[in-house]
Amino acid sequence: MTATPEISVDRILRALADPSRKAIVERLSRGPLSVSSLAGPLEITLTAVAQHLQVLEECGLVRTEKIGRVRTCSLETKGFLPLEQWIRDRRSLWEMRLDQLGDFLAEDE
Amino acid sequence: MTATPEISVDRILRALADPSRKAIVERLSRGPLSVSSLAGPLEITLTAVAQHLQVLEECGLVRTEKIGRVRTCSLETKGFLPLEQWIRDRRSLWEMRLDQLGDFLAEDE
Repeated sequence: MTATPEISVDRILRALADPSRKAIVERLSRGPLSVSSLAGPLEITLTAVAQHLQVLEECGLVRTEKIGRVRTCSLETKGFLPLEQWIRDRRSLWEMRLDQLGDFLAEDE
Repeated sequence: MTATPEISVDRILRALADPSRKAIVERLSRGPLSVSSLAGPLEITLTAVAQHLQVLEECGLVRTEKIGRVRTCSLETKGFLPLEQWIRDRRSLWEMRLDQLGDFLAEDE
């Protein structure tokens, strides 16, 4: 990993905030698909799908592999880890803060 | 909850994909702050901060409370739950799919 976790989280959030890219991730979580099978139900062009896939690949959420003439796309579930870690960090910092407040109030009694 | 979990996830992702709103969430995870203390380091106007806070409130990530003349903002860590659940669902569907593939290959041997 050359990217800092912070950069990754921003990229993952921006990637998933797009409804087409979120739909691609949802469909791929049910199993690998070819680019053309992905494009059909989304009602967008193959070029648009390819661009969305590139964004998802660059932030580590999707992997594509060309076998013969067919490019197959798979979900990379470990790509979610930086975002999950970011959420956990927010929660643990907040809980630590609440604990400190509790201690402070207890001392004050 | 009147909103479906799906709508909430879209809103949470769109809310957090904005760098200023993500920065607000990061700062609030270290403890509650007034609107004006939030605005300072972000180098944006109070009006812009108020608009970002409204988006974060509407998707359940932030709570604001007016005490006297000061509006205080707090993180609502339970607001992350729909997004965390969405990620867990993607991972469990994918792992189920891998298990099925493993069973299929084992049968084939």
